[in-house]
Amino acid sequence: MQPDAQRDIYFDHAATTPVDSRVVEAMLPYFAERFGNPSSHVHSKGVEANQELDQSRASAARLINAPAETIIFTSGATEANNLAICGYLEANRERGKHLIISEIEHYSVINLCLKLRREGYDLTLLPVDKLGLVHPDKLHAAVRRETALISIQHASSEIGTIQNIKELAAIAGEAGVFFHSDAAASAGNIPVDVVDLGVDALTVSAHNFYGPKGVGALYLRPGAKLEAQIIGGFQERGYRSGTENLAGIVGMAKAAELALAEMPQRREHLTVLQQRLWNGLSQKYEFLHFTGHPSERLPGHVSFWLEYIEGESLLLFLNVYGIQTASGSACASNMRGQDEHDLAASHVLTAVGVPAEYCSGSLTVSMGKDNTEDEVDYFLQIFPQVVERLLAMSPLWADKLKGKNPYQ
Amino acid sequence: MQPDAQRDIYFDHAATTPVDSRVVEAMLPYFAERFGNPSSHVHSKGVEANQELDQSRASAARLINAPAETIIFTSGATEANNLAICGYLEANRERGKHLIISEIEHYSVINLCLKLRREGYDLTLLPVDKLGLVHPDKLHAAVRRETALISIQHASSEIGTIQNIKELAAIAGEAGVFFHSDAAASAGNIPVDVVDLGVDALTVSAHNFYGPKGVGALYLRPGAKLEAQIIGGFQERGYRSGTENLAGIVGMAKAAELALAEMPQRREHLTVLQQRLWNGLSQKYEFLHFTGHPSERLPGHVSFWLEYIEGESLLLFLNVYGIQTASGSACASNMRGQDEHDLAASHVLTAVGVPAEYCSGSLTVSMGKDNTEDEVDYFLQIFPQVVERLLAMSPLWADKLKGKNPYQ
Repeated sequence: MQPDAQRDIYFDHAATTPVDSRVVEAMLPYFAERFGNPSSHVHSKGVEANQELDQSRASAARLINAPAETIIFTSGATEANNLAICGYLEANRERGKHLIISEIEHYSVINLCLKLRREGYDLTLLPVDKLGLVHPDKLHAAVRRETALISIQHASSEIGTIQNIKELAAIAGEAGVFFHSDAAASAGNIPVDVVDLGVDALTVSAHNFYGPKGVGALYLRPGAKLEAQIIGGFQERGYRSGTENLAGIVGMAKAAELALAEMPQRREHLTVLQQRLWNGLSQKYEFLHFTGHPSERLPGHVSFWLEYIEGESLLLFLNVYGIQTASGSACASNMRGQDEHDLAASHVLTAVGVPAEYCSGSLTVSMGKDNTEDEVDYFLQIFPQVVERLLAMSPLWADKLKGKNPYQ
Repeated sequence: MQPDAQRDIYFDHAATTPVDSRVVEAMLPYFAERFGNPSSHVHSKGVEANQELDQSRASAARLINAPAETIIFTSGATEANNLAICGYLEANRERGKHLIISEIEHYSVINLCLKLRREGYDLTLLPVDKLGLVHPDKLHAAVRRETALISIQHASSEIGTIQNIKELAAIAGEAGVFFHSDAAASAGNIPVDVVDLGVDALTVSAHNFYGPKGVGALYLRPGAKLEAQIIGGFQERGYRSGTENLAGIVGMAKAAELALAEMPQRREHLTVLQQRLWNGLSQKYEFLHFTGHPSERLPGHVSFWLEYIEGESLLLFLNVYGIQTASGSACASNMRGQDEHDLAASHVLTAVGVPAEYCSGSLTVSMGKDNTEDEVDYFLQIFPQVVERLLAMSPLWADKLKGKNPYQ
């Protein structure tokens, strides 16, 4: 089969999603027409902008069942995670200097906390089990009198596993410890209810649910103290200064409204695609191993690793056939060569027990609302051909065929 | 004259500018089509996004005559100012704990430095003269052995004055002190050349030159050390993590290209409008006082204050007539009531010697490339009527007419 120039199948929604055309349409008037600065309280364009900001805040809040005034708009999930952690620690210095996060957090939590550790904080990296779950008893055992903050992601973009945040947050609540959850991968894709989850702070990312890049939000429970990390003109009630990215915020709000309205259908559709892909791959290859939780996982998310096959080649071959998918997280790719010791293998895959030498052979297929069954079938048609070709090049596979254990 | 519902005259370009329709057009494909994550190095959409990021970086750099690799994209000028100051101080802790800024900096510099002062930094607030200029000899005298950083804005959005940054940066250079300039109000509107100015870091804001809100940049001189303030996936060479707002960055790049190409015509046009407005107001009212520098000022920027008249009423009346203009800076309006002692009057106007009781009577008319002479004429027709009406309501003016000194 020859590469098909007609095919353009995007299976990397965990890295980013296309902006929904209805979202683009909602944003458009806010560039050249309704372009006022929400802080310009003294004229029509400013007042109009400020009203739209209020409405957008209400829409973004509804997505996670929060009151509008608990939403702090940011430039994205990374900033929101940084604001939650640094902002809480700075505003609550009387708390101890112990932090708890899981081993499989996003880089914006893990790298920040590693920096805080270098600055004198004590950091506990909670292990996860083979399915990627943090065990409540492990969290319970890790909490100390001097624990200031716990941050555990809601869902993993890399292995798809959804944590039981409600149970974990309850442990934090009993201990009186601030609990933050990075819901960048989940909010807008599965139901996220901050009241039900019982979190103190929660991160949302617009570009993960068909909204624009460059905008996100931090939910902050009423009464919680937080110190701003970007100082200036006192926008966002002083929690986050800087002229608001109103077009982006309007886009996030529209994406949130659509996500809320269409979530049941989207999930149903994605579950069908996921099951189809899963079935098509299962029991085909003894050397293919699924990662993450089989049921508690993001809809449309299928992740696995392969023996014998080099992952980057796999991705590049699939790309030639018009299939765009990922290995590990998009962010990780910037760090190759930055710190070889830490980052040669995905910290998430290592945490769920994938041997480091295989981590580069991992694949994350993250489907979106506009993918089709036909695209899954095309993937299932192409994938075996690519695998066969890569096996033919693999010295490890050659050893295996000769009856040797190639990994010894 | 009755309010004219047809009129919609935007004279508040210092607060924000409309996005140029050519910029919107350039951005559009990056929402729903070319939506890849620049960090997704392994497939076409990601590679394409990364290439566009490189090209945009080059365009943004050209605007300020900088090499592409010196540009760090941020969520805006406020973040860029924060990154320059906190990032430099954190990366150069061996330097002393003395900071120098001018009295008329933007809130994102002044409020940040006031916070740093509370945390133990020694802060010198350089005074400005009546025209808003920082005097080089005052800077020279303020520099100490323990001075870590100097930050002086290029131009004031409130009074329009353009500083002689080249001379000020040279003083810093001789003393070996890091020099940052906030060029949010100037870059894209007047020539800004980081090599000629001799700055170590410089802030650019896209929405101040017909680009989108939510995107800005920090120029950082090659070799200068800076610690990231938003930690995560190592985007922007580690200086600023978070998935890049590619549509916004493409918009900023396009706005930069247009600004560079059209700057001579825009400036000429704005100088005509500025002169026309200036002439129309000059010598009409003995109680009208222009602020800022008469020649070293932003094109299309006219600012003044009035005796006897309450500024907010003036703005609201003008708005009724379809003229949108500002008093002080947009950001200041969020802080009314936050800290009455510090912020009842504009710190900028106070610094140039406007008595605090008049600061609310100030007006900033900041015209843009698409304003017309006809709009200026309309302003000059409406303004006297509004002033007359407000004088008629003014007890101070009544006293004055009776021959009393109303301010005694």
